[in-house]
Amino acid sequence: MDTLLLKSKPILDFFNLHHKMTASPVKARLDIFLIGNNPASQIYVSKKKELADSLGIETFIHNYNNNTDQDLLQIEIKKISDNTEVSGIIIQLPIPKNLNIRELYNQIDPKKDIESLTDTNISKRAYGEKTYLPATARAVQTLFDFYQIEIEGLHVVMIGNSDIVGKPLAAMCLDKKATVTICHEFTRDLKSITRTADIVIVAIGKPKFIDESYFRDDKTQVVIDIGVNDIGTNEQTGKRKICGDVDFINVKDKVLAITPVPGGVGPLTVLSLMENLLESVI
Amino acid sequence: MDTLLLKSKPILDFFNLHHKMTASPVKARLDIFLIGNNPASQIYVSKKKELADSLGIETFIHNYNNNTDQDLLQIEIKKISDNTEVSGIIIQLPIPKNLNIRELYNQIDPKKDIESLTDTNISKRAYGEKTYLPATARAVQTLFDFYQIEIEGLHVVMIGNSDIVGKPLAAMCLDKKATVTICHEFTRDLKSITRTADIVIVAIGKPKFIDESYFRDDKTQVVIDIGVNDIGTNEQTGKRKICGDVDFINVKDKVLAITPVPGGVGPLTVLSLMENLLESVI
Repeated sequence: MDTLLLKSKPILDFFNLHHKMTASPVKARLDIFLIGNNPASQIYVSKKKELADSLGIETFIHNYNNNTDQDLLQIEIKKISDNTEVSGIIIQLPIPKNLNIRELYNQIDPKKDIESLTDTNISKRAYGEKTYLPATARAVQTLFDFYQIEIEGLHVVMIGNSDIVGKPLAAMCLDKKATVTICHEFTRDLKSITRTADIVIVAIGKPKFIDESYFRDDKTQVVIDIGVNDIGTNEQTGKRKICGDVDFINVKDKVLAITPVPGGVGPLTVLSLMENLLESVI
Repeated sequence: MDTLLLKSKPILDFFNLHHKMTASPVKARLDIFLIGNNPASQIYVSKKKELADSLGIETFIHNYNNNTDQDLLQIEIKKISDNTEVSGIIIQLPIPKNLNIRELYNQIDPKKDIESLTDTNISKRAYGEKTYLPATARAVQTLFDFYQIEIEGLHVVMIGNSDIVGKPLAAMCLDKKATVTICHEFTRDLKSITRTADIVIVAIGKPKFIDESYFRDDKTQVVIDIGVNDIGTNEQTGKRKICGDVDFINVKDKVLAITPVPGGVGPLTVLSLMENLLESVI
C-alpha cells in the first residue's frame, strides 16, 4: 500500500473554499511585532501576512531593532492591544534573549492573544477552560481531523519538550485521550520507545535526525514532522531549502502516513493562527 | 533483598530537626479557606494546621458554607491576600462544583499562592521561570531527593492526568529530565506500559486498583502511590481507614521500593506546603 502523505494543501484549499462560501465580511485586523533581524522570522511574518491578505484580514507589522528595551516594548504592545480596531496580536519568535517573553505577552488582552501565550490563556488551558489552542497544536489537531486519524487510546510518542511547541502538543494529544510519552535529549534508547508508538511527533529542530531505524517494519505508524530546518539556498532559484526533523525519503516507505516538509504542518500552523484570529471577532 | 519502604517519617524528622536548629524565629501566617462541609477536607485542613502549629506558623481557618457565592468569596480572598500579615493562602479542595476555582485562586497575590495555582504561577512554570512547585509534585521530588532516586533519563509512567495532581507531577519529572509516559482511563494495555517503567506513579483515586500484575518480576521498579482513599472507619478506634491506589500488600515484594499509604506521600504534601510558605517569607 502506498504511504499516505499528510499534505496541508487539500486542507488549505478546503478552508479557503469554505471561507469564501460562508464568511460574512468580518473586519479583522492582525498586528505582528517583529523584534530583531532574524531572517527566518522575516520569512515567517511574510507568510502570515500573505495568508491574512488572501482571507481579507488587514495586517500591520511593527518592526523593532535588536536592542529595543523591554519597558518600551511593553508600552507599545499594550497600546496596540488597547486599540479596539485590533483583533489579534502576534509576537514573532524568537526574540532577542535579553527580553522576557512572558512579560511581553502579558501586555496582550487574552481575547487578542491568538498564540495563547498569556498567563491567562496558559492557565485556562491548564484548568481545561475554553481558550485558543496554540498554533502548532491546532495545526496537528486539524491534520488529525482532516485525515480522520482518531487518536483516542492510541500511543503518541512526542520527541521534543519545548515550552512553545512540544508541551502544548503533548497537552492537546492528552486532551484527545491519547496515551502520551514525552521524550527528549536525555531519553535512553529512544528507538525502542518510538517503535512501540502508534503516532510519532517530532519537534527537535535537527535536520533529518529521525531516520528509518526509529520505526517498526509493519507500516502501521504515523509520523508528524514539526521541524522546519534551513539547509541552505537553492543556487538556481535563490530560494531557501528547508527540511524536517525526519529523514523523509528513507522513512516514507516504512510508515502508514507521514507529513512532508515543506507542505505539511508548517502552512497549517499559519492557518491555525488565522482561525484563532477569525474566532476572536465572531 | 528487602523492599525499601519510602516512608515520610524520616524526612519529617529530618526537616523538624533541621527547622529547629536553623530557623530564625520567622513570623509566618497561613490562611486556609474551607468552603462546604466535605468531611475529608476538614481532616486535611486539621492536618495542615497541626504541622503549621508544630513549626510555629500561625493559622487562620475561614469557613464558608456550600452555598457561598463566587463574588463574595473572591472579595473575601482578595481581602485576606491584601493583608500584609498573611504569608500564604490555601483554598482547600474540592470546593462546591458551582464555583470557578481558577477565578478564586486569581484573587491571591502570586507570592502568597503557596499551592501555585494562580494564572501567574501556572504560566511561570510553563515558561520555566522560578516559582512554587505544587505540593504533590514537591512532595515526590523531596522523596526522590531524600532516598537518592536520580530520575534523569529514567522512564516514569504516570497513571492519572488530573489538572491539580497528575499534570504538575508529570511536569516535575520532565523538568528533572525523565522520559515521561502519561496514562489514564483511555490507555490501552496499561500493564504492558507499566511493565516497561523504571518508576510508576499512581494518582487515580481508586483503592488498590494497581495490583502486582502491573509490574515486572525483576524487583527493579519503584512505585509512588499518591492515592488517599477512605475505606471506612476502624470500629475499635473510631479512626478512618485509608489506603492507596496501589494494592500495597501484594505489590510490595515485587518491587525495589514503594511508598506506603498512610505514611508515604501524603504527609510530605503537607510538608511541601509549609516549605513553600516558609520560602514566601524569607
